Amino acid sequence: MQALVLEQKGKLALREIDLPLEVGPGDVKIEIDTVGVCGSDVHYYTHGAIGPYVLREPMVLGHEAAGTVVEIGSEVKNLKVGDRVCMEPGIPNLSSRASKLGLYNVDPDVRFWATPPIHGVLAPYTVHPAAFTYKLPDNVSFEEGAMVEPFAIGMQAATRARLQPGDVAAVIGAGPIGIMVALAALAGGCARVFVSDLSADKLKIAAQYPGIIPVNVREQSFADVIAEETSGWGVDVVFEASGSPRAYQGMFDLVRPGGAFVLVGLPVEPVPFDVASAISKEVRIETVFRYANIFDRALELIASGKVDLKPLITGTFDFKESIAAFERAAAGHASDVKLQIKVKA
Amino acid sequence: MQALVLEQKGKLALREIDLPLEVGPGDVKIEIDTVGVCGSDVHYYTHGAIGPYVLREPMVLGHEAAGTVVEIGSEVKNLKVGDRVCMEPGIPNLSSRASKLGLYNVDPDVRFWATPPIHGVLAPYTVHPAAFTYKLPDNVSFEEGAMVEPFAIGMQAATRARLQPGDVAAVIGAGPIGIMVALAALAGGCARVFVSDLSADKLKIAAQYPGIIPVNVREQSFADVIAEETSGWGVDVVFEASGSPRAYQGMFDLVRPGGAFVLVGLPVEPVPFDVASAISKEVRIETVFRYANIFDRALELIASGKVDLKPLITGTFDFKESIAAFERAAAGHASDVKLQIKVKA
Amino acid sequence: MQALVLEQKGKLALREIDLPLEVGPGDVKIEIDTVGVCGSDVHYYTHGAIGPYVLREPMVLGHEAAGTVVEIGSEVKNLKVGDRVCMEPGIPNLSSRASKLGLYNVDPDVRFWATPPIHGVLAPYTVHPAAFTYKLPDNVSFEEGAMVEPFAIGMQAATRARLQPGDVAAVIGAGPIGIMVALAALAGGCARVFVSDLSADKLKIAAQYPGIIPVNVREQSFADVIAEETSGWGVDVVFEASGSPRAYQGMFDLVRPGGAFVLVGLPVEPVPFDVASAISKEVRIETVFRYANIFDRALELIASGKVDLKPLITGTFDFKESIAAFERAAAGHASDVKLQIKVKA
Amino acid sequence: MQALVLEQKGKLALREIDLPLEVGPGDVKIEIDTVGVCGSDVHYYTHGAIGPYVLREPMVLGHEAAGTVVEIGSEVKNLKVGDRVCMEPGIPNLSSRASKLGLYNVDPDVRFWATPPIHGVLAPYTVHPAAFTYKLPDNVSFEEGAMVEPFAIGMQAATRARLQPGDVAAVIGAGPIGIMVALAALAGGCARVFVSDLSADKLKIAAQYPGIIPVNVREQSFADVIAEETSGWGVDVVFEASGSPRAYQGMFDLVRPGGAFVLVGLPVEPVPFDVASAISKEVRIETVFRYANIFDRALELIASGKVDLKPLITGTFDFKESIAAFERAAAGHASDVKLQIKVKA
Repeated sequence: MQALVLEQKGKLALREIDLPLEVGPGDVKIEIDTVGVCGSDVHYYTHGAIGPYVLREPMVLGHEAAGTVVEIGSEVKNLKVGDRVCMEPGIPNLSSRASKLGLYNVDPDVRFWATPPIHGVLAPYTVHPAAFTYKLPDNVSFEEGAMVEPFAIGMQAATRARLQPGDVAAVIGAGPIGIMVALAALAGGCARVFVSDLSADKLKIAAQYPGIIPVNVREQSFADVIAEETSGWGVDVVFEASGSPRAYQGMFDLVRPGGAFVLVGLPVEPVPFDVASAISKEVRIETVFRYANIFDRALELIASGKVDLKPLITGTFDFKESIAAFERAAAGHASDVKLQIKVKA
Repeated sequence: MQALVLEQKGKLALREIDLPLEVGPGDVKIEIDTVGVCGSDVHYYTHGAIGPYVLREPMVLGHEAAGTVVEIGSEVKNLKVGDRVCMEPGIPNLSSRASKLGLYNVDPDVRFWATPPIHGVLAPYTVHPAAFTYKLPDNVSFEEGAMVEPFAIGMQAATRARLQPGDVAAVIGAGPIGIMVALAALAGGCARVFVSDLSADKLKIAAQYPGIIPVNVREQSFADVIAEETSGWGVDVVFEASGSPRAYQGMFDLVRPGGAFVLVGLPVEPVPFDVASAISKEVRIETVFRYANIFDRALELIASGKVDLKPLITGTFDFKESIAAFERAAAGHASDVKLQIKVKA
Repeated sequence: MQALVLEQKGKLALREIDLPLEVGPGDVKIEIDTVGVCGSDVHYYTHGAIGPYVLREPMVLGHEAAGTVVEIGSEVKNLKVGDRVCMEPGIPNLSSRASKLGLYNVDPDVRFWATPPIHGVLAPYTVHPAAFTYKLPDNVSFEEGAMVEPFAIGMQAATRARLQPGDVAAVIGAGPIGIMVALAALAGGCARVFVSDLSADKLKIAAQYPGIIPVNVREQSFADVIAEETSGWGVDVVFEASGSPRAYQGMFDLVRPGGAFVLVGLPVEPVPFDVASAISKEVRIETVFRYANIFDRALELIASGKVDLKPLITGTFDFKESIAAFERAAAGHASDVKLQIKVKA
Repeated sequence: MQALVLEQKGKLALREIDLPLEVGPGDVKIEIDTVGVCGSDVHYYTHGAIGPYVLREPMVLGHEAAGTVVEIGSEVKNLKVGDRVCMEPGIPNLSSRASKLGLYNVDPDVRFWATPPIHGVLAPYTVHPAAFTYKLPDNVSFEEGAMVEPFAIGMQAATRARLQPGDVAAVIGAGPIGIMVALAALAGGCARVFVSDLSADKLKIAAQYPGIIPVNVREQSFADVIAEETSGWGVDVVFEASGSPRAYQGMFDLVRPGGAFVLVGLPVEPVPFDVASAISKEVRIETVFRYANIFDRALELIASGKVDLKPLITGTFDFKESIAAFERAAAGHASDVKLQIKVKA
């Protein structure tokens, strides 16, 4: 089977590779249609590693995928051949202590697509547990289906925030994850979401959504804007989606007494954390690792029209142009949010 | 001062009455602009009592109000003369044990407008604590401001539900409160809300909002529709907004395992409650009594455009036509949601 | 293998029966040591059914069990041969939607020991998933291990209550489940627990535990005692553990504004439920179905000495006296809490 | 009236000072019996400031107090002359947005005893709102009453943790606050609490309580002990009660996937915070600022005997020896937990 293989840091190849395609009793076989290019895919391409996960063998990339069921295992009841689906890329051990608690995303034994040494799905077919394969509603396209994975991170953040209807939020960072978080926060009950960034291009993309208020922190202090707009009270929830250590400076000025922080962005090094400021407002801080029990909720919001992810797909490539897609993604254009590869011709 | 006085059951008069208008240090004096007619106002008019609250003296009606600040007390900082405002009609004892917990709505000593023996505000002026008076954003009209109170009940229900983004909900009953609950649930994170009623007229009003799916239970079983639409899983949350004992029959068939019920409607008598069915799905049941800490969140959603209450105002009367307004409300037209009285000419 | 078989309603036999003992990769084989007699076992014996669960074939009874691991499957890592263990009697489908949420107790496909048509474990051996088999700490006996299952119900109730440290609670009913609930509530943060019953014998057993305050409702009004002891405020949480419809009369008088109810007892018929009273205090009502993610926590509390279940074992029988054990249990002596059968000689 | 006055940094005087003693309608006048010496009192004595709070005028010290009601305001209903009481030392603005939410501890306008420029209560009398004055149960002494304030911090931490029955916890730091936190965690549902410190003396005091497991981090790695004792899973909750920046190194190794941190200790400078480690376990982090709605719960636990604070009172001084009490406290003996001053002879 031909697949997009990361041979080693900096070297991609679209070539034949042997991938297991046996369908177990609880599995489905899926013909891949569309795969999104994720920042982590690009990071493995450019750096060969993310933290403790180091590429040691050639690995197929891709984990944001949608396709069509072409075969089902003997015990599968929730899906049938011909169903259009998207897939949750992590496969936990369902018998683990974390999974039994409903926290299968933090099961230490989870196997996650395109995280070494697990192969991803930039290939014509894959086999996946039916329990982590979700039927697309009729009005949700494959392209939108492949957006569910990155949107799920925003949804997990909005869920952990425990939003209340009418909350006001702030999102630090208008990159792809920041926008996903902002959209999930709006869909999840926020009336307004202030989004900050240094890039006018990124803010322009975010600002096309009603309810998102862009703040260019080259021009204005985020804390000043929020104080002004909330009569000095602060926002109910701040989402940190930049991963920048600078975001942690004065971060607690943004939030109201008793408010919440949700940490989504991943700084490489420890950041300076002002415990005294956090305590003086008795803030709650949640952290987000991927997602659990989110895909069905994300699909509900997309199908209902409350969340429109299509404007975020800023480029589409044929499968045979996959390497070009990664090169463009690696270039990091501020006007790009999500590039997708059409695996199926 | 002239006011709409309920003299006794069935007898209204627009007449002079002496109302205290002293402005304490924490109070504001408000010139009333618009007052909505609530089902409870009408019930006092037609029945002279609601449960333990019995009309014994003439009482001014009206508790859904918006107006303009015309005087402020010496310690008021959050408001100034000329501010357009709406008011929370319950005044709790802020030193009580319930209020200290943030549950001021269930403070046994709360004094609530137009609940005997406390006067309401169908009068040109009122004096109210600034802490329970909320500035209207510039793009929120007095008419919308007077809708905040009934919408707050829906918001309290949606808040108690602890919605998660992408939840699917059902609302039993498409009366004014049912619609308010459905709108708050949609704004608060639901992707879809199924609303049931026996009245096609009421369902038609509800169905004008995207995301609301009307179900006429004269024609279809609500449980069947929900089973079909959720692949047999059930909705995440059911809101009971009819107050009808019949709603309690088979109620737990609607909900998913581990789902929630929120009881808003007020049956007159005890209802038959199927504990075994509730337990077998381990459902959580919340109850809603008015609201606390909701008005500012409600205003956020109205100002942001996420919630549009204007289509629910189905009739407007001059102050001198107040009695006609009550007569029409008492007639209970299915096509009426909310009637309002313009107190200020 | 010899086992205690319920042949049909009212007819028990200690006889040979063929039970599957294949050890799958995730399973362990356990030599049963001790099995407690549960009210549900007795009810199948005396009535042949519980609600929708009807005995149609002979079935082995018993689901409160402890024993020793004698064989492990190829993938089992958390246990080894010789480990003393107790077992969670429900085996869910871990791939189900409910299980993924952490709510495996409400998975509709759960297979539960001694619930028709699933065999129980009053037999020398059983095979069980390692994921639902829990190692007993060294200072916890087999007898205590066999008490974990009924205690887990109390623990689930205390967990659902979301107790806060220093809460005051009330438990309606001093039967075995009522006492388990009271002990879990005390261990889980309550300062005091008022327990009501009509039986002085049962209350005497409950009252041996510090923190439990018995109230004989033949002699005193439970609501009066609680009002007196809480200065009229009410308790934070009420646990309904009697299953009696009469418990629902005036039930909301016991609780404080904003307090919680936890329904554990199972009334056969729908009960009259006073929605208006519930709403006026805005109470939250939780329901409890068995337990999930509780056994390890229960063992922690028993091993630490915070909970001592030994005084509740009021009778022990040899395996060959199993029928006598059931006859005594069926007689329902008020001074009996838990009878146990020593399967291993 | 004579009082213990901090004249300036390092200079105490027991001298006459004019303090307001007018009793408003919601106030009570209290004859002070016992006052504990808190680390913050000592810090103002030795440093003249804590963060932004700087001593600029002479200030009476003391905020952990118990005494007897000698006069009540005209509207006071919950107390009467002769009642033995303890007092919550912060007086919020009950009309503030934070107070209405039940978060009166983070009301920016709170006035807190012995925090400049507000006087404390090391004086024979004080006047205080009845709403923040709590009757001592008959079996709770003045000395225990004066311990409620420091214990309330531990209770607030245990409450914010949202403990579940049978949790296992770790507390970093065995100073007075660390011990209070550990006792509240045990009373609030924990089966076991591991407490770490560098001081054998402090650990010895902590270890006298059943359920507390001392770990001397001079001799053992805290993470190793916890991994060993929890089969590599980690504890459910970690309380940081040392305020030491070093505590933040490797902190997330202690906790289970999906577990919680509660930050109580106050580091002077920002600490290095390992966001990546926090995220990989998706931990929740709560912070604690004083307490709200805790005093009545704390008194319940003390009165019930579940929490015994008497062994922590390691020295008692007459009022006229107040300065000696502060000198001993400033010396910081590891064997001292709490020193108290008997204001009333």
